[in-house]
Amino acid sequence: MNNNELLKIFNYYKSLNLNISMARGKPCKEQVDLSLPMLDLLNSSSNLIINNADYRNYGILDGIHECKKMFSNIMGIEEENIIVYGNSSLYIMASLVEKSVLHGVNNNLPFSKQEHIKWLCPVPGYDRHFTICESLGIEMINIPMDEHGPDMDKVEQYIKDPEVKGIWCVPKYSNPTGINYSDEVIRRFAKLKPAANDFRIYWDLAYLTQQSFDQQYEPILNIYDECKKYHNEEIVYMFASTSKMTFPGSGVSALGCSENNIKDIKNTLKYQTIGYDKLNQYRHALFFKDDKTIKEHMNKHAKLLKPKFDIVLDIFEKEIKDIARWSKPTGGYFISLYVKNASEVVKTCKELGVTLTDVGASYPYHKDPNNEHIRICPSYPSLEELKLATEVICLAVKMVCNK
Amino acid sequence: MNNNELLKIFNYYKSLNLNISMARGKPCKEQVDLSLPMLDLLNSSSNLIINNADYRNYGILDGIHECKKMFSNIMGIEEENIIVYGNSSLYIMASLVEKSVLHGVNNNLPFSKQEHIKWLCPVPGYDRHFTICESLGIEMINIPMDEHGPDMDKVEQYIKDPEVKGIWCVPKYSNPTGINYSDEVIRRFAKLKPAANDFRIYWDLAYLTQQSFDQQYEPILNIYDECKKYHNEEIVYMFASTSKMTFPGSGVSALGCSENNIKDIKNTLKYQTIGYDKLNQYRHALFFKDDKTIKEHMNKHAKLLKPKFDIVLDIFEKEIKDIARWSKPTGGYFISLYVKNASEVVKTCKELGVTLTDVGASYPYHKDPNNEHIRICPSYPSLEELKLATEVICLAVKMVCNK
Repeated sequence: MNNNELLKIFNYYKSLNLNISMARGKPCKEQVDLSLPMLDLLNSSSNLIINNADYRNYGILDGIHECKKMFSNIMGIEEENIIVYGNSSLYIMASLVEKSVLHGVNNNLPFSKQEHIKWLCPVPGYDRHFTICESLGIEMINIPMDEHGPDMDKVEQYIKDPEVKGIWCVPKYSNPTGINYSDEVIRRFAKLKPAANDFRIYWDLAYLTQQSFDQQYEPILNIYDECKKYHNEEIVYMFASTSKMTFPGSGVSALGCSENNIKDIKNTLKYQTIGYDKLNQYRHALFFKDDKTIKEHMNKHAKLLKPKFDIVLDIFEKEIKDIARWSKPTGGYFISLYVKNASEVVKTCKELGVTLTDVGASYPYHKDPNNEHIRICPSYPSLEELKLATEVICLAVKMVCNK
Repeated sequence: MNNNELLKIFNYYKSLNLNISMARGKPCKEQVDLSLPMLDLLNSSSNLIINNADYRNYGILDGIHECKKMFSNIMGIEEENIIVYGNSSLYIMASLVEKSVLHGVNNNLPFSKQEHIKWLCPVPGYDRHFTICESLGIEMINIPMDEHGPDMDKVEQYIKDPEVKGIWCVPKYSNPTGINYSDEVIRRFAKLKPAANDFRIYWDLAYLTQQSFDQQYEPILNIYDECKKYHNEEIVYMFASTSKMTFPGSGVSALGCSENNIKDIKNTLKYQTIGYDKLNQYRHALFFKDDKTIKEHMNKHAKLLKPKFDIVLDIFEKEIKDIARWSKPTGGYFISLYVKNASEVVKTCKELGVTLTDVGASYPYHKDPNNEHIRICPSYPSLEELKLATEVICLAVKMVCNK
């Protein structure tokens, strides 16, 4: 197609005055509708005093038993290795990095008393992970990702530096590439022997309960079990939440880690709060009463997500196969699209009323070294909107390629 | 009474095998029952998409309009001066002190980059305020309290020191003395011109909506309005929560402060979370739909609290008038009891199965300089338990006095 023809199509889409956001991995209305029955589980006649503990009153800093059990099932770690927090696992991660800066990790010097702190960032990755580090002045180092996970040769090399204190990982349906870490990658993580005692793997299981678009459970290796084989349990903090299961922002979240780490973390947590919302914890535990219920519920999410990903991937295949490449995830919330001059593509889409995640957002310091990656989030728009938006993206890719 | 007679009574109470805690200002079961109808307000058929915002989904970092309005009514400050957080105002305070250490206050140097940080602590005060400072290595300075509030001469003197960065205040039904700050004290706070630009008054309105035991509203001066008169709005952070209104730990909380402060705080808050639980915010806003509803609800709390305070105060008056003194609060959750050798009294009570707050808890570093103050919390035990526990306290005071 020549430039004149593309310009004609551009003007057509311009005339539609679109206003579609594909910028965030946000569940759509129909997905949040799935959890409405949860709002009927607690009411004024519910029994909320369980084993002499009044869940409506102060207390139980680390979460109620029923909700620990729920997360224990989900994360594959014992209840005593779990702290249930409030509505956001991102908050747990941010507060743990902050704790490390202010108070240190276990008995190590606080980061603030150490000269320089570095963090490994598999890229492309989750923007909100990176901004936590950036806001605290922690130097971030890019680690390339492939379809098996982060480049472990590089990780094993970098952790010889005692200034390297952590790494961000989204091992299941990774944000934004959609891949699952391979068994070998996870085993190599479990075996890591970093120079720094206070190095921790931040293992963000945001999409762990997600079923594949074909409604299959695609397991990843349980890193905690692997770590135990090498007496290396201290190295990992695991995070999970119900944000992609029930109501994003009104859910519950949890940390899973070794007894020593739990003890260390509770030791500062007790200064910050008396406890988290136990009624919402109980509501969630009642809703997800067993594994089967969780899988059935997550299959409903998968059913809603599948046609959305199909539309985007089909149109990409039809329209831009020769001038772009992209990930073909089996689950999760994201597609990684790689194109020439990505920032120009995003700008052109914006002109046509389609908002994409900023180029660079998936990289530390907002810098995509090749200006090539666009994170595509198909979950939120309707099918009609998605079709239009994807056509707009393909048009923009073609226009930029033709320049 | 001689020692032998006292010992006889001691043995009698010992034989009862009591197990009563008067250690924390915790609402009793009947108080939390008052809010059960709130759990019926949201269910699966509720309309949760308000003005195009889906309260079940991500977004709205600073809280929903309806809940801002609720806190605006409560705190007497405009909606744009409010951020609604999660379930704990203690968490807001802790996170703001941490933010000040890590990122600084407005454009000032982070506390961590300044040589030494000091904080003013009216005493006796709230133990959890003090442990926030202690955990962060902030030097605490005792400020004496009287029935009008903190000694303002001392406060005005200390703030000439640029290392002094804050002060903890519970101006309404103060924890633990139960007093209300006088208009003059509040005006002097509003006029403060500290040497440090990053000095802030932490104004904890934990008991602001509380009605007096006689079901009257005892207003205190609105510090924000007073500050405005002196163009001094930046100086104060106000905190409120529903912990003493609905379900402690499953409520909502808010920060109120100037536009500049709000902007500064949001600027780091956005790295920590995508937002707080909007469904619970909405539930609370529906429950407390206007001032009248709040007052009626809080009167029910007052009705339950009054007989409990009456019992304690009556028995004190009858038994230990000549050997102790105590505060006579008109509302709130606490009585301050002043006795000789308080730690010995608490120890004796413990032997008889009555748990009181540790002596020193109401002072920085857990050090009551005169070993004289005991915080009495009558809200949680039943009337019968309270009667027994108070008799035990009086016995212990007498025994220690006789030594």
